[in-house]
Amino acid sequence: MNEGFADLGYARPDLDREQRSGLPEVVYGPGKSPEAITGVVRELLAANTGPVLVTRIEAGAAAEVAVPGGTYDAAARLLVWRPASARGFRVVVASAGTSDAPVAAEAAAVASAVGLDVHEIRDVGVAGLHRLLAEREVLGAADTVVCVAGMEGALASVIGGLVGCPVIAVPTSVGYGAALEGVTALLAMLTSCAAGVVVVNIDSGFGAAMAAHRLAHAARR
Amino acid sequence: MNEGFADLGYARPDLDREQRSGLPEVVYGPGKSPEAITGVVRELLAANTGPVLVTRIEAGAAAEVAVPGGTYDAAARLLVWRPASARGFRVVVASAGTSDAPVAAEAAAVASAVGLDVHEIRDVGVAGLHRLLAEREVLGAADTVVCVAGMEGALASVIGGLVGCPVIAVPTSVGYGAALEGVTALLAMLTSCAAGVVVVNIDSGFGAAMAAHRLAHAARR
Amino acid sequence: MNEGFADLGYARPDLDREQRSGLPEVVYGPGKSPEAITGVVRELLAANTGPVLVTRIEAGAAAEVAVPGGTYDAAARLLVWRPASARGFRVVVASAGTSDAPVAAEAAAVASAVGLDVHEIRDVGVAGLHRLLAEREVLGAADTVVCVAGMEGALASVIGGLVGCPVIAVPTSVGYGAALEGVTALLAMLTSCAAGVVVVNIDSGFGAAMAAHRLAHAARR
Amino acid sequence: MNEGFADLGYARPDLDREQRSGLPEVVYGPGKSPEAITGVVRELLAANTGPVLVTRIEAGAAAEVAVPGGTYDAAARLLVWRPASARGFRVVVASAGTSDAPVAAEAAAVASAVGLDVHEIRDVGVAGLHRLLAEREVLGAADTVVCVAGMEGALASVIGGLVGCPVIAVPTSVGYGAALEGVTALLAMLTSCAAGVVVVNIDSGFGAAMAAHRLAHAARR
Amino acid sequence: MNEGFADLGYARPDLDREQRSGLPEVVYGPGKSPEAITGVVRELLAANTGPVLVTRIEAGAAAEVAVPGGTYDAAARLLVWRPASARGFRVVVASAGTSDAPVAAEAAAVASAVGLDVHEIRDVGVAGLHRLLAEREVLGAADTVVCVAGMEGALASVIGGLVGCPVIAVPTSVGYGAALEGVTALLAMLTSCAAGVVVVNIDSGFGAAMAAHRLAHAARR
Amino acid sequence: MNEGFADLGYARPDLDREQRSGLPEVVYGPGKSPEAITGVVRELLAANTGPVLVTRIEAGAAAEVAVPGGTYDAAARLLVWRPASARGFRVVVASAGTSDAPVAAEAAAVASAVGLDVHEIRDVGVAGLHRLLAEREVLGAADTVVCVAGMEGALASVIGGLVGCPVIAVPTSVGYGAALEGVTALLAMLTSCAAGVVVVNIDSGFGAAMAAHRLAHAARR
Amino acid sequence: MNEGFADLGYARPDLDREQRSGLPEVVYGPGKSPEAITGVVRELLAANTGPVLVTRIEAGAAAEVAVPGGTYDAAARLLVWRPASARGFRVVVASAGTSDAPVAAEAAAVASAVGLDVHEIRDVGVAGLHRLLAEREVLGAADTVVCVAGMEGALASVIGGLVGCPVIAVPTSVGYGAALEGVTALLAMLTSCAAGVVVVNIDSGFGAAMAAHRLAHAARR
Amino acid sequence: MNEGFADLGYARPDLDREQRSGLPEVVYGPGKSPEAITGVVRELLAANTGPVLVTRIEAGAAAEVAVPGGTYDAAARLLVWRPASARGFRVVVASAGTSDAPVAAEAAAVASAVGLDVHEIRDVGVAGLHRLLAEREVLGAADTVVCVAGMEGALASVIGGLVGCPVIAVPTSVGYGAALEGVTALLAMLTSCAAGVVVVNIDSGFGAAMAAHRLAHAARR
Repeated sequence: MNEGFADLGYARPDLDREQRSGLPEVVYGPGKSPEAITGVVRELLAANTGPVLVTRIEAGAAAEVAVPGGTYDAAARLLVWRPASARGFRVVVASAGTSDAPVAAEAAAVASAVGLDVHEIRDVGVAGLHRLLAEREVLGAADTVVCVAGMEGALASVIGGLVGCPVIAVPTSVGYGAALEGVTALLAMLTSCAAGVVVVNIDSGFGAAMAAHRLAHAARR
Repeated sequence: MNEGFADLGYARPDLDREQRSGLPEVVYGPGKSPEAITGVVRELLAANTGPVLVTRIEAGAAAEVAVPGGTYDAAARLLVWRPASARGFRVVVASAGTSDAPVAAEAAAVASAVGLDVHEIRDVGVAGLHRLLAEREVLGAADTVVCVAGMEGALASVIGGLVGCPVIAVPTSVGYGAALEGVTALLAMLTSCAAGVVVVNIDSGFGAAMAAHRLAHAARR
Repeated sequence: MNEGFADLGYARPDLDREQRSGLPEVVYGPGKSPEAITGVVRELLAANTGPVLVTRIEAGAAAEVAVPGGTYDAAARLLVWRPASARGFRVVVASAGTSDAPVAAEAAAVASAVGLDVHEIRDVGVAGLHRLLAEREVLGAADTVVCVAGMEGALASVIGGLVGCPVIAVPTSVGYGAALEGVTALLAMLTSCAAGVVVVNIDSGFGAAMAAHRLAHAARR
Repeated sequence: MNEGFADLGYARPDLDREQRSGLPEVVYGPGKSPEAITGVVRELLAANTGPVLVTRIEAGAAAEVAVPGGTYDAAARLLVWRPASARGFRVVVASAGTSDAPVAAEAAAVASAVGLDVHEIRDVGVAGLHRLLAEREVLGAADTVVCVAGMEGALASVIGGLVGCPVIAVPTSVGYGAALEGVTALLAMLTSCAAGVVVVNIDSGFGAAMAAHRLAHAARR
Repeated sequence: MNEGFADLGYARPDLDREQRSGLPEVVYGPGKSPEAITGVVRELLAANTGPVLVTRIEAGAAAEVAVPGGTYDAAARLLVWRPASARGFRVVVASAGTSDAPVAAEAAAVASAVGLDVHEIRDVGVAGLHRLLAEREVLGAADTVVCVAGMEGALASVIGGLVGCPVIAVPTSVGYGAALEGVTALLAMLTSCAAGVVVVNIDSGFGAAMAAHRLAHAARR
Repeated sequence: MNEGFADLGYARPDLDREQRSGLPEVVYGPGKSPEAITGVVRELLAANTGPVLVTRIEAGAAAEVAVPGGTYDAAARLLVWRPASARGFRVVVASAGTSDAPVAAEAAAVASAVGLDVHEIRDVGVAGLHRLLAEREVLGAADTVVCVAGMEGALASVIGGLVGCPVIAVPTSVGYGAALEGVTALLAMLTSCAAGVVVVNIDSGFGAAMAAHRLAHAARR
Repeated sequence: MNEGFADLGYARPDLDREQRSGLPEVVYGPGKSPEAITGVVRELLAANTGPVLVTRIEAGAAAEVAVPGGTYDAAARLLVWRPASARGFRVVVASAGTSDAPVAAEAAAVASAVGLDVHEIRDVGVAGLHRLLAEREVLGAADTVVCVAGMEGALASVIGGLVGCPVIAVPTSVGYGAALEGVTALLAMLTSCAAGVVVVNIDSGFGAAMAAHRLAHAARR
Repeated sequence: MNEGFADLGYARPDLDREQRSGLPEVVYGPGKSPEAITGVVRELLAANTGPVLVTRIEAGAAAEVAVPGGTYDAAARLLVWRPASARGFRVVVASAGTSDAPVAAEAAAVASAVGLDVHEIRDVGVAGLHRLLAEREVLGAADTVVCVAGMEGALASVIGGLVGCPVIAVPTSVGYGAALEGVTALLAMLTSCAAGVVVVNIDSGFGAAMAAHRLAHAARR
């Protein structure tokens, strides 16, 4: 452990990440047994003082993780211990359609767990622009907007043109056919005509929240 | 010729298309010599009474086509004989950025040549939404909107949400990297969240104009 | 509601779309609970006077939507309230093979629900051209042809060459291997040698019907 | 040479291919110097008695190949020594558009050089079906049809439905945008709804001619 | 029926294909109910005199098709009525690995059903070349070789270099990762260094057999 | 102009973007004539008070832009008027190889022009990790790191693991073959195992700089 | 069998591979019945003296293979008879994340079975570089490193820069969205900035082990 | 320099790579000026004692590099100082076609420069298998075979089946159409049915040589 990690044989949790970079070590749930998750979470709780997260974990598996004190968010499929208290960095999570809800929920829950102030705006896709324009004030007060959209992902460009703060675009796999399981939204967001929009992986609400966490870190210095 | 086409050896112009479907036979310029174009245009002018078009022809080649009475539009790279007079079907050609101008010009020039009323709106990309919203009245009066955009092609979705008339989306190869030479805009337009938007091939201002021509045909019946 | 939409928390139905563009607000079924669908449908029925549709909904879920007066079409997987009466715009839905039937059924049912006159022609793929040519009269009388085909999608080009009215091509995911789940038909239709053919997303019978609805709107002005 | 090949250092011409399989050794021109081509051609002429071909060679380079007795076909970019005399196997080379001409020319010239009876039909794309149907008799008399088409490649399906003889489809790189430099035509031909159509590489008139040569070989046994 | 097809409402079997092109009308099983298959098979048996085939049909569905006289081949998933008797055209079906067996079985069974003499060689992949070279005599006596291979598909090139008769390559979806579900074998076969190899769709044993049938047709004239 | 944009016919510069979002309107050079650029730049300088930029403009064209007071940066291909003075937001631009220099130069020059403090670290690719580790102190003091890398883009993951501040990854088109003109680096950066790394378009040094500008904006509030 | 293979009808095990190349004949499990596997394994055990392997076989099927003396490794899904004893060639199998464990297990188990000395290092992804650097001594003592990583696959580049011995990179299908089921890691490893890294197919722990076996063979000569 | 690298501002040559890993630091020529190359080469020659290489440099640029003692290989486009003397590790570079010669030349020249014994076999593509089989003795004596092939890349599988030593496959961009600029050969080599074949990037003769160098390193320990 004096090397900055624990060696559990099957995993090496990075125990000094929190210290090194201010980022929590997060456990990616899929493919891990509740026992393995239990082991890693214990190590992380013991070695650090900040929040510990397990992402993309189903309710059944979450119930089997034998570490007290965690809370489970079913919509976000997230387990959290020691969530950070909010420190005044405002993140607006805007999503285009109701099918984008799970990804938006992950972004919102992870961002809350690491201490950001989260406000959600749902179902503001650009085919009914007035729904988005009604939220201009909320968007204008944001420190960062996380923009969640599938299909053609146009919401990122429209929001990127409305605000000057960072816009983190999350393409989702919502859609069919030419949506190519999120690749179309991904490519569209990367080629947004609104300057300075940044993009994370398809369906990665988690990635967007961690990017927002990095921004809050920079803003606080 | 009683078979409905001429056999020039190197080409078989479809002489009864005008009669059969109301669509002009159009000569696609690239890869054809001025002599070959001259031969085909003569056949078409002789056998029909409507407009005859040569698309994507550069000024130098256009000057060598030895058929009197044609007019050349350099921006659209289009040669036209016997343009149709306008018959009251209003087509608005809206383009997202100044780099989309050549494709928009082709759409506008072909549409005019086949007898549509064309109005152009330029540089109304969604990153500055007020530029588009200032044209709501023009859009609302359109019988059809041709929407020309590269990069992420979001303009099609926004216009598709504003109007109830047909929206023909033309993806362009404008952009770099993840724009994939127009494939991204193409995919985005096909997955537009605005219902009933239709799409033509990348950079095909011609295709959009011909589609509008088909619509005008349906509307007039 | 004076903002033109209802805020149900989980969704913001666009209540003035009908007024704004003549297009119905349509609920995309997949991923929504019967309760959520019930809530949105009620809002839409209350705020508007036209048809309300739920697409791609299986029989089981449809039975649980607690809004009286709807009718369910199993072949099209469509729920409809207040279908519009036909207003004389003739749409021919032509499909290439028997496997394309579900997509053709969706196109036909949605088109009927929004007030178009629909005529279906089935199993007219180009490998047996006489089957299609036997329907030339029907095709010639159409205001619009919706062309549904998978595999190589050649039907769109052949029909596009036979008629002068709008041809809306719907690629389907029928086929295997190099059919690439509909991408091949999509690309083929986009590059059709018949001028002015327009294309919607893979398997989107709904999109084609809405495009036809926009055309009827333009034709009626 | 008793090993069945010559070792020129830079190349090992396969001297017993003609004997082994009845197929000529063909020299692919691009990237080879006239001197290298000269060396290989001399070996092949000395070791065998049949035709010797150099494909895709430009006029300038062809003129520098220092082996007497060859004839150059500029349209096909083909150099031939000792062409075979025709032996009554009828190959029809049908091409969709005038831009497909160079590929069709290569197919026709190579097929002639190896002793097939070639008949060309040009500009019979499916957008004007009557142009193709006027040639039904010619197609019906073919031992094999080579079908050359770019864009959406629908010609292969239509011809495949009209005839019972082998149909060898050659996709071409003609078209732009979604034509993807011939990939769309290739995929479309591979998924043709006409059973038993076979496909060669994009723009490979040569490959189609050699396939026809193999067929003639089988037919003669 | 005097139009050359029957109109069953849900399908239009092409009744004069046998007469027109010598090819049987074949029913593609997936997605069709046993009742629908029964109806089409009856029409085809009544209107023609040759073989009638249903491909890719599982044993359970095959048992429910209510048309007497058919035989079912489980390995090939093929139902056949009135198989043709062999007429002396020798087809060798060579497959690279044991996992390619189902595709090879379909090719062999369909080819037999339409009257070809079939000989199978299995597990002759190029990693153990002596296994293939031991069959040189069989290959040399073939009128056509159908070459079935997944993964990198190299077998087609090696066989194409050994024989002068037609080689019909069938890529299979055998393999994982970079095999891309058969796309790699498909591309590799299309770019074979052996001249004149032709290719059909991924896993299409049926397509290869029908192509061989067309060849036999040409050979017999 | 009271609509917030100027209508120059060929372009509609967005005159209130600076006011609306704090972002400068930037002119993308390619495809625009020096005259057109001159016209737009004049409008922007007159209507706003902040920096005005023209990106990706070659030296020859830059010299023809007839607006006094601009400075040209050849490495970055950037023209700037009224650059902002630095306001203490530290951006480190780290690049993997010497071939990535032009993209890094664009990022650095644009970031400087909009008022960020820029520090460059060059040639710190991960194949020689000690070169990067020697800069840990510089990286640790950054408010944001822009990470520029082509080929496999691994630098983003390594830096993302070392620092807690925002990491903006810019994939470049450096590399050949499987580098796929930057697509590989793009995909790799999007799937980085370091949480919260964000990505912009291939070769878009400009996009990264504008994203950093948005971050600085958020940090200053 | 004097031809160097056995002909079991359904398979032709290559009996002289061991003699010819020192490589064992390995049976790929998927798609084969326990009976077929039993037959092939018996032939191989009888004809050779070295190890015999069956890969990717699930526990249930493995239990049904009726050949005594085999041992089953569940993590690696591997059945082995007559494993070779270790001969002092040190292979380090390093994996990036815990989800890569199954592929690493296959690599390790196959390498052990063919007589290599295997040492595993797990969970040393580059986002926590100190975990890898703590193993520099182990890496430095390796004769070969097998590097197993999904997502962006950066581990191969970092290890490639640290050691001079052969580095065999195995991309895995771990990750989602832009990871494209392992294609991203594959492309990234192929374009590694560390010179001389070699790559095998996605998830092919087996391929990496066999490559290491070939290396050991070369090293021993 | 005590940090193990030199900081030239524009580049950081890795001065202790030779010591750390036994691999030379190699300068990739494209995009670097002769002056920059001169600077880096001088640093490397001064800091180390082994060979220094510049790859992919054209004759003109090579002549301007102002460092005495280098030799230029035009076929390989390689500049070398202080080539290592051969140490008895036999590398056979086998190439499929004459168009693959430049890539084979780079592999051979780099391998020689770093001290390997190189033997070249050219034009042994699998379409004429006897050309390859005539070299079985040479292949059998190799410590490693580098296999260079474009198009379908089948040579790697055939050689992989013939020898037990390491086989390093180099796909080339030779071919057209479905060859996809080398991607097809790359995919085919990765899915080779011959176990344990490893692959490097398209056209990377350099990568293959460096991989062979790593093997020699392992073999010598």
